This record gives sequence, structure tokens and C-alpha cells, in this order.
Amino acid sequence: MNKFSTEYYANIEEKLYSAVIADVLDNLGYMNQVLRYDIRPLFPEAKMAGRASTMATVEVHAVPKEPFKLELQLLDEIKPGNIVVCATQGSTKAALWGELLSTSAQAKGGRGVLIDGLSRDAAKIIEMRFPVFALGLSPADSRGRLDVVTIHEPVKIGDITVNDGDLIMADLDGCVVIPQAIEDQAIAKAFEKVSAENIVRDLLSQGASIQKVFQEYGVL
Amino acid sequence: MNKFSTEYYANIEEKLYSAVIADVLDNLGYMNQVLRYDIRPLFPEAKMAGRASTMATVEVHAVPKEPFKLELQLLDEIKPGNIVVCATQGSTKAALWGELLSTSAQAKGGRGVLIDGLSRDAAKIIEMRFPVFALGLSPADSRGRLDVVTIHEPVKIGDITVNDGDLIMADLDGCVVIPQAIEDQAIAKAFEKVSAENIVRDLLSQGASIQKVFQEYGVL
Amino acid sequence: MNKFSTEYYANIEEKLYSAVIADVLDNLGYMNQVLRYDIRPLFPEAKMAGRASTMATVEVHAVPKEPFKLELQLLDEIKPGNIVVCATQGSTKAALWGELLSTSAQAKGGRGVLIDGLSRDAAKIIEMRFPVFALGLSPADSRGRLDVVTIHEPVKIGDITVNDGDLIMADLDGCVVIPQAIEDQAIAKAFEKVSAENIVRDLLSQGASIQKVFQEYGVL
Amino acid sequence: MNKFSTEYYANIEEKLYSAVIADVLDNLGYMNQVLRYDIRPLFPEAKMAGRASTMATVEVHAVPKEPFKLELQLLDEIKPGNIVVCATQGSTKAALWGELLSTSAQAKGGRGVLIDGLSRDAAKIIEMRFPVFALGLSPADSRGRLDVVTIHEPVKIGDITVNDGDLIMADLDGCVVIPQAIEDQAIAKAFEKVSAENIVRDLLSQGASIQKVFQEYGVL
Amino acid sequence: MNKFSTEYYANIEEKLYSAVIADVLDNLGYMNQVLRYDIRPLFPEAKMAGRASTMATVEVHAVPKEPFKLELQLLDEIKPGNIVVCATQGSTKAALWGELLSTSAQAKGGRGVLIDGLSRDAAKIIEMRFPVFALGLSPADSRGRLDVVTIHEPVKIGDITVNDGDLIMADLDGCVVIPQAIEDQAIAKAFEKVSAENIVRDLLSQGASIQKVFQEYGVL
Amino acid sequence: MNKFSTEYYANIEEKLYSAVIADVLDNLGYMNQVLRYDIRPLFPEAKMAGRASTMATVEVHAVPKEPFKLELQLLDEIKPGNIVVCATQGSTKAALWGELLSTSAQAKGGRGVLIDGLSRDAAKIIEMRFPVFALGLSPADSRGRLDVVTIHEPVKIGDITVNDGDLIMADLDGCVVIPQAIEDQAIAKAFEKVSAENIVRDLLSQGASIQKVFQEYGVL
Repeated sequence: MNKFSTEYYANIEEKLYSAVIADVLDNLGYMNQVLRYDIRPLFPEAKMAGRASTMATVEVHAVPKEPFKLELQLLDEIKPGNIVVCATQGSTKAALWGELLSTSAQAKGGRGVLIDGLSRDAAKIIEMRFPVFALGLSPADSRGRLDVVTIHEPVKIGDITVNDGDLIMADLDGCVVIPQAIEDQAIAKAFEKVSAENIVRDLLSQGASIQKVFQEYGVL
Repeated sequence: MNKFSTEYYANIEEKLYSAVIADVLDNLGYMNQVLRYDIRPLFPEAKMAGRASTMATVEVHAVPKEPFKLELQLLDEIKPGNIVVCATQGSTKAALWGELLSTSAQAKGGRGVLIDGLSRDAAKIIEMRFPVFALGLSPADSRGRLDVVTIHEPVKIGDITVNDGDLIMADLDGCVVIPQAIEDQAIAKAFEKVSAENIVRDLLSQGASIQKVFQEYGVL
Repeated sequence: MNKFSTEYYANIEEKLYSAVIADVLDNLGYMNQVLRYDIRPLFPEAKMAGRASTMATVEVHAVPKEPFKLELQLLDEIKPGNIVVCATQGSTKAALWGELLSTSAQAKGGRGVLIDGLSRDAAKIIEMRFPVFALGLSPADSRGRLDVVTIHEPVKIGDITVNDGDLIMADLDGCVVIPQAIEDQAIAKAFEKVSAENIVRDLLSQGASIQKVFQEYGVL
Repeated sequence: MNKFSTEYYANIEEKLYSAVIADVLDNLGYMNQVLRYDIRPLFPEAKMAGRASTMATVEVHAVPKEPFKLELQLLDEIKPGNIVVCATQGSTKAALWGELLSTSAQAKGGRGVLIDGLSRDAAKIIEMRFPVFALGLSPADSRGRLDVVTIHEPVKIGDITVNDGDLIMADLDGCVVIPQAIEDQAIAKAFEKVSAENIVRDLLSQGASIQKVFQEYGVL
Repeated sequence: MNKFSTEYYANIEEKLYSAVIADVLDNLGYMNQVLRYDIRPLFPEAKMAGRASTMATVEVHAVPKEPFKLELQLLDEIKPGNIVVCATQGSTKAALWGELLSTSAQAKGGRGVLIDGLSRDAAKIIEMRFPVFALGLSPADSRGRLDVVTIHEPVKIGDITVNDGDLIMADLDGCVVIPQAIEDQAIAKAFEKVSAENIVRDLLSQGASIQKVFQEYGVL
Repeated sequence: MNKFSTEYYANIEEKLYSAVIADVLDNLGYMNQVLRYDIRPLFPEAKMAGRASTMATVEVHAVPKEPFKLELQLLDEIKPGNIVVCATQGSTKAALWGELLSTSAQAKGGRGVLIDGLSRDAAKIIEMRFPVFALGLSPADSRGRLDVVTIHEPVKIGDITVNDGDLIMADLDGCVVIPQAIEDQAIAKAFEKVSAENIVRDLLSQGASIQKVFQEYGVL
């Protein structure tokens, strides 16, 4: 399947979940791919898979000469399958994201947003069912408070690096980053693991000893 | 419209929202009116507009001689349109608010509660649809843990001052304080801004360049 | 009623709530029985009463020789009425709990789980309506990150001690621990207090002065 | 020796230290008497033993009608041997203590100060060698920021209760509170333990097995 | 005296201190001029007065194309009397400052450095007696971790704005910012207040009632 | 030079420093070797180089059956050149280290201690000039509060892994871990870099343009 097609992302979104991908990455030796746990979806059913389109912000005090310049450029460059990833160093001074940006991103085929900062217009974004993952919400606008200083460069979300183009998978449990170098391998193994778990679940729900089941199947 | 009438508050509650008010206050040069982002509604649809009736607490160890004295006095002084604002310096030792206080406040025409501390009896308060905004929940009662030391005085919620009588607007995005001196101006401009945003939203949902739209309309 | 029967726990779960138990414990002089307020249920209706089956973890770096050993032993020892209590010192490095463990615990008559750490597989656990109370969620597995070092020993959740066998009651407001020595007394008084509150609620909802009501009934 | 005499306090200050008192309190079953570890002396040699004279503050916004009222009253009531204990709920908004208060307290026989908040005028206080233990320093005055609301009542420093009249011992390691009910017993045992440790230290410094020494002497 | 001369700054450094300036600013209605209390000097005697030369950083992951570019430009633009002010949003990922930068800044007449982040080479900087105020220390270099994105623009240190050219005064108690608009007034009043405090100190050290002294002199 | 001789460690301690080692590790692609910045030496001159002897603790509530068992075993196994590394998950409940353990460790040739937790007996340890690096101090003993659960296994200090046998270098700037696989290379390059910095320092102290110096020498 074309790794840049809508079908590819939709298939991952529908059949996989963040925990199974995290397990597969662990097994491949990539143990630092889960983002900080306090980045949460705006609504419990929010789920997204897509390719990171990265930006980083800095806190400012005055309104910059060209406010929103790089941010709007990135927005207009969104391609179908993109997830906008905003690194703010965990700033809770203002909402970097909102309804109008969501409307624009969704119209261009964007699949969601990931911020280690705040969003606003939550009620309307939830109504749109557009997946936004953030630290929280605030009515305060980013103008004169946060300014985008780089786009399409590697960014840090907590201690984890996200590169422009990395595959992101996020759901109610949290957010995982799949480095491009191992994407094919990781996705293939994740589809395998999902089916293996079904047998174990059936045995356990019948009250089987979890010690024996783990010994036999090695899955938890 | 009478600034102290139920219609006035209900109209703001229904047609405005915290983000548009925060934007208008920014434009008027009032950039520190949004309260700390971790004060959250007990249920997502909670929304309230009303006038602050303030109290401040201190953590105590023993049960005071007259427990709840000032708190109950403030409760009995609630007028229609009031929002009870409790400043605890962010204390998470006990729940300052609960079901019985909500029942009393609602019966007197109170429109909601704002605490930089904890509430309890969340299930029942949610059932009442009474808007309570707080840092979180705890089963622990405030008796012998928190005592109200001032009422109707200016209080601090995080770094923001709230004066008795200030207009409060809070919804899913968070809480904004509108100082009385600029209330008329701010509310008028907020109603204007709400209608302007509709045009922009339509253009963006059709996939228009967000750079061009921002250049033309100056709104985000 | 048999203190170790399913009826006993179900009756508490149905008719009592955490706040009333916390009040009764306060009156008995036990003022440190409420757990840290940021341990939250995975879904708002989650409610559980049962007896603590305790374990404590330590953060590790390498996969231990026998991963999950003590944890699985405790799981297989679950008796009807047990609540699994996991003390992690507030670690947010990985999810200690998940769907398969929930399936096993539920099949053995376990009534819920309490962790001062993270869970995963939230969507499926919510679907099962199995009560899990935790600090948050993460896709990251505990293997190679957290290891259970003691089971059935006293543990600390924040500043509160939980002993194996202590009665736990948790709902939307939070979690309370009832020491075994005063369990009978506390539960009896909690049932009494629940009925007393109904009269007060009725008076307040008719707009009665809260100062007078408190003076007469001494309840808030 | 008279428990309220200067000799009594000076003797404890000189011959005992906070760790030995904490150990003795542990052995007597009082395991929650050590204050939060981030309350630190202004200079490393600071050491104090004395009786708590307690006050509690609340954060305010406006300058109160009678600023400093209760605080100055407490200051003028200082008796020789007193340690001023200020509970601020960990507020770092302003410095509650400073040079002039130190000058006054020292002149009246006060032995030191303990705040879970900030001090100022550190350079001059250090020059006076007056023991002040605090969370940190700030140039900001408390006027219009913090106001004393109770004096001579029990207060909370973190999770620990300090009663007016309790014995306080503090040095480079931190601060310990000795409840009045067990003061005689605790102080007597602390003097005993100090001499026992000397033997063990000598053995260990000669390279003896610490396992054997602990087995024989039971001290660490 | 020329407000941009070395004599001007040295005179303030020698005769004034941060607390007296904070008090004077309070009286002029400027109550938010004291920086976060956890920005501390590298050695207790460090004291500095000078004009802010501001820069702001963002956390990065990769080494930028032109590392240190703006930072070195600002360094080469240092004029006698400047204090380098680095706003990092409180980042503790790396040390933004070190010995070689100190050597260069000192050689150009810089009077000190203020960072809401980390420094390194502390032992050598202390030996140079060059005043550096920071959140802490780290051996980790800023290359590939922090990059300067603006210079000579207004910056935020915590909640306080510092403008390029503002007067900074810092000592053991902490750091104060004096806005340029009120600099003359503030400095004049601070010199006055310093002499008034001497009388009060003398009275208090003789054991006078602090209530009476405050009533008469209004100073604390 | 023998990598396990006292001369080897003493030479590193004397001629190298943590910042230069961190730079060299960065250049070798090891960018996560600096420990959390709030682990600080008990006295400013403390400096240590040696091989990690690791242990990990868990918070406990009751005194374990064999208190201190693994801890004392590790202590008795100390070889000349060892640095005791205690991983507590940042616990501040009690002091894991103290004077008697320092006495024993020093007598056996131990070069220092590194804890992401607390120590006690600071005054005596400072007098001994034994390097202890910790988060802070507390009078509270670890007995019944912290128990060692593994020794000589890999541990986590914050996000950084330390393996038994890794080389540790710590001074006033902080703590660095040098993995054994690259120890030879890193130490060799660090000695080279130290001499290169001297030229740059001389140029800058004469007021040379830092932009030009960096262009030419590539060092900062």
C-alpha cells in the first residue's frame, strides 16, 4: 500500500492502536517513542495516524512584526495525511491552536494536531470531530505570547524527538512516534501482534491462570 | 440592557464564549485576564457568566471556633447573577465546595462557582447541571482543613486579581475576568467580533489559503 | 452481613459514596484517609468498594530475569471482592495496568484497580466497565520500565498508607481507605449519615438560609 | 533543667542535631515530625532549638486595612526561647521575613525563624548570624501580598502540624518538630543515642564490615 | 550623573539593594517587577546593576545551520554597563552560559548575566567573580539543545517582561527590573529610603515595641 | 594507565571537569549522559571520578524483615575507585545516606556517592570532605521509608541509565556518566579538548570578537 495515501493512514487508524505500536517499537529496541502522558485528546474517541509536519514556538512578549508568518506558511503547505506537530516546550501561556486553524487544516486533508501546549475553541473542534491532542485548553490567543520560529525541523516533545515526516499514531492511551527508518517493519509487526492478543484475551476471560497463559504465549 | 439582570448574563452565556472575550480584552490592552488553565469545568457543557462574589481561604489544622462562619455569610448574601469565586492559593488539601452549597447557591440565583482548589459531590453537581469550575475533586471535607478568612475583598487566582463584582465568563476553554471599568466596551466589542468570525470560517472550510485570508481579514 | 461477601461490597458501592465515608472517618479522628486527588477514574461512572490486594513497584531499566513474576502471582491470588492496589511512587514512565490484566482480574471476581501511576488500553477497559483509578494513561508497557518488588505488604500512595486487606471505596470524587480496625464502625455511621443529608438538601433547595440550616442540623 | 530556660535550648542546640532527634521520634512511633526538605537555612552553620510561636498567612491582593497587625502583635509577644513559625502554604509570592523583623526578634530573645515561604535581606541576616530557615529569598515585600490571619493557633507546614509551644530543632539537615507530650522522653533518649554513635563511627573508620557492625550495635 | 556611565551602575550596586528597590517600585504602583525567586546567584556576594541586553532561546534538537549566530552577535554588541538577559522559558535541558562567554562579556564591560535557565563552568566563573544569576547548573552544552531566536526584543522571565535597556538590579535576595520610564524616580527614592531604615533598625535592636515603631515610622 | 587504579581516577578528577566530558560525549553522539541538574554536591569543591556501584530503592511503609540487607551488602563489596549510585526515583521521603555510611565507604576506598534522593549528616560529611551528590537533605532516616531492592543492576537517574561499572564524573556543574564502551575514547579526547580551550580563553579575555574566535577555533 502507498505509504503516503489516505488509505494507508486510515487503515492504521482503524485497526491498530498506540499501545500495540509502543510494544512493537520496544521489541525493535526503540524504547523512547512514547510522548509525555499529559498530552491528551480533546474527546475520548479522537484517534489519528499521519505524518508529522513540525513547528516550534518561543514565548514572546510583544506582537512580532509578522505575527503567525511561519505558522500560516506551514498551514498552507499541509498535504493530505499530515499531522501538525507543535513543540512549545510545554508552554501553558496561551492557546496555539483553535477552531479556524482546525477548519483550514481539515480542509487540506490534515488528519490531526499534536501540541505540548494548549488549544482553544474546544467545543467547536469536538463538534468537528477533528483530533487535537494537547496539554490543555485556554481562552488566551497566541498572538503576542507565542511565535513560531522553525518549521519542518526536528522538534522535541518532552524528551522525545519528532522529525518532519515521522509517522504519528495517537488515541485515548496517548501518542507514539514511529521513526521513518523502521516504519515498514514496525507497522507490519503491529498488525501481527493485534491478532495474537485475541487468543490470550479469550483464555483470561474464562479465568485461566495468568501465570500459565503468560508462560505459554509470552504476551501481556 | 440592565447590567445586573438575569437576561444580561444569560445573553452573554448563550452568545459569547471565553476565547472571543479574551481576544477583545487583549485588543483593549488587558492581556492578563485569563485564569490558570488547570481550572476546569466539572462537565464539558458547563458555561457561566456572572458577577464575582469573592472569598479567600487559609489552610488550617484544627476546626476553627466558628467553622464555616464567613463562608455561610457569603452564601446567604448571594444575589441572582452571582458567581462564587473561592481563592485557596491552589490548595488541594480538601474540597471547599459540594452538593449542599451548590443547592443553596442555585436556589438563590447563583450562576456558578470558580475555585482554584477542589470540589466534591461531583456526580450530584453534574446531575444538577450547576456550573462548577475547579482544579479537581476530593472526598475530603474542608472542615478543619480550610477556613474562609475574607469575603468580598479582592482575591488572587494564580497571578490574576479578581475583584468582588467583576464579570466572569467561563466555558470549556477556561475562565476570563472582565474588569468592571471596561465591561461595557469589552462586551460590545465581543458581540461584534463573533459575527466577523463567521465569514472567515466559511472561506477556510472551502480550502482557501489561510495566509491570504489572514492578510485580508486579520482574524484568526 | 458477611464482611467478605460480594453483597457486602456491592451494598457499599451502591448506597455509599467516598465523601460521606471521608466525613465519617474525620469524625472518628482519622483525618488522613483520602488519597491524592489526581488519582482519577477512567470513566465518570466508575465506582468500586473492595479489599486492597497490594503491590509496590520500582522503576527498572533492563528487563528483569523473571518479568512480571510477583505481579502475576498476585493476579492469580485475587479473591472475589479484591481491589488491586499498585504503589509506584507516582511513576509516569509506563502503564502498569491494561486490558489483559483487567480481563483476568474481573474473571476472578476482582472489583477494580487503584494505581498511583498509569494504565493503558483505556478504550477497552471503559468498554468492559471495569473500574480503574489511575494518574493517567500511556501506551508504554511496564516491561523493562517498572517491576513489582513486594506484594501483600503495606504500601504508600502519596502520604497515605494502605494495608493489604484494608477496605477501599472510590468514585468520581476520589479514593478513600478505611482501616480494618474501624471498618464496622465507619460503615455503620456512613449509612446513618446518608439519610440525614436528605432533609438538609430539601430545605436548602427551597432557599432556606444556609446559616440557619447549619446551626440546626450541623451538616454540610 | 528548666524547660523554658535559655540554658535548656542552648544545650540542645549545641549537643544534639536534627537527625538524632528524628531517629528518636521514629523509635517512639512518631514518624511524621520532619518538615519538608526544601526549607533550608540561610547559612550552613545556622542551628536553632526553641519553642514555636506560630502564625499563618493568606495571599492577598490589596493592602489590608491594618497591614501587619497580627504579625506585629506576635512579634511583640516573643519570649526568650521562641522560634517564630510562619505557615504560608508554601507561598513564593513575597518575602514574609526580613532584617528589621530579625533585629526585633533577636532583641527579644527569639532564637530563630521557620517559614514555608520566603525571606529577604539575606546578606544582613547572615551577618547577624540569626538562624532563618525558609524556602528561598525574594526582594518583594509581603505588604499587599501576604497577610497574617491567625497567631498562636496550630499550623501546617506541608503535611506536618506545628502547635504553638512545640519544640523545634533545626540545622543544616533540616527541621524537626517535637510534640510537647513526648518532649522529655525524646530529648533524654537523644542525648543517650549521641554517645552510642561514637563507638560505631570508630569501628567503621577502621574499615570494619558494616554488616557485622550493624548486627552487633543495631545503629546506622 | 550620566545614566549610561560605569559610575552610575557602580553607585547603585554599592549603595542600593534589590529589596529597597522592590519596595520603591511597589510604592510607585509597579508591583510586578521582581523576577522568579529561583533565579539565584552563583556565589553569595554576587551583585550587579546594569542595562538589559536581551535574548530569547528555543529548545532545538539538531544543531542549527549557524549555531550560536545571534548569541555571538549580541555578545559582540555588549557595551559597558550591559547585563545579558537570556529568556529560555525556564529550560533546564542545557547550560546556555559558561566560562568563555563570561570572559568575553567581562572583557567588553558587561556587568553580569541573568538566565531563567542553566549555566556551567561555575567554578571558573566564581573565581572570576563575574555575577551570573541562573536557575542552576549543568555540564551539558547548549549546542543542539537551545538556540537563540531573538535579540534585543522584549522577553519574558516567568511572568515578568524585561525590555532591552531596562535597568536590572540583582543581589543575594533576587532580581528586580526597573522600567526605563520610571528609572529616575525609582532610583532617587531608593537612595532616600535606605537612610530612613537606619533609624528604625537602631530602635528595634534596643528592644523597642515593633508595633509602636511601625506606627511612628511606617517602615518595615 | 590501569583503568581500575586509583591513579586513573585521581588524574581525571584533577585535570578534567564535567563540562568538557559532556562536550566530548556530545561529539561522539552520546547526547544523553548528563544527569538531572538538581543533583547537587554537598559542598562546592566536591569533585569525584569513579566507577558506579549501583543500587535501587523503593518507598516502603513498614520496617522490612531484614532492613538495610542489600544496602549493607553493597557497602561491604565496595572496591577502591567505586562511587555508590543510589536510584530512588527522586524520592524525598527520607535520607538514604549519612555519616556512618560515608565513613564506611571512605574507609574502603569509595570515591563518593550519587543519589537522586536525600542525604543527612551534611555537616559531618562536609567536614570529612567526602563527595556526596544529592537532591537535598533531610533528618529523616530511611528505615521504614526506603528499602534497597536491587544492587549491581542498571538503574535510572531521571531519564538516564547508569550501569554498574560505568565511569562517573561529577563536580560543581553536575554529574556525567561515561558508558564503558566509549570510555577510552572519551577520556582521551577530553584531555585534548582541555588544552585547546586555553588559547581561546586568552584571546577572549583580551576582548577579541567572539564571532571571529568561534569561526576560527570552533570552540565555545
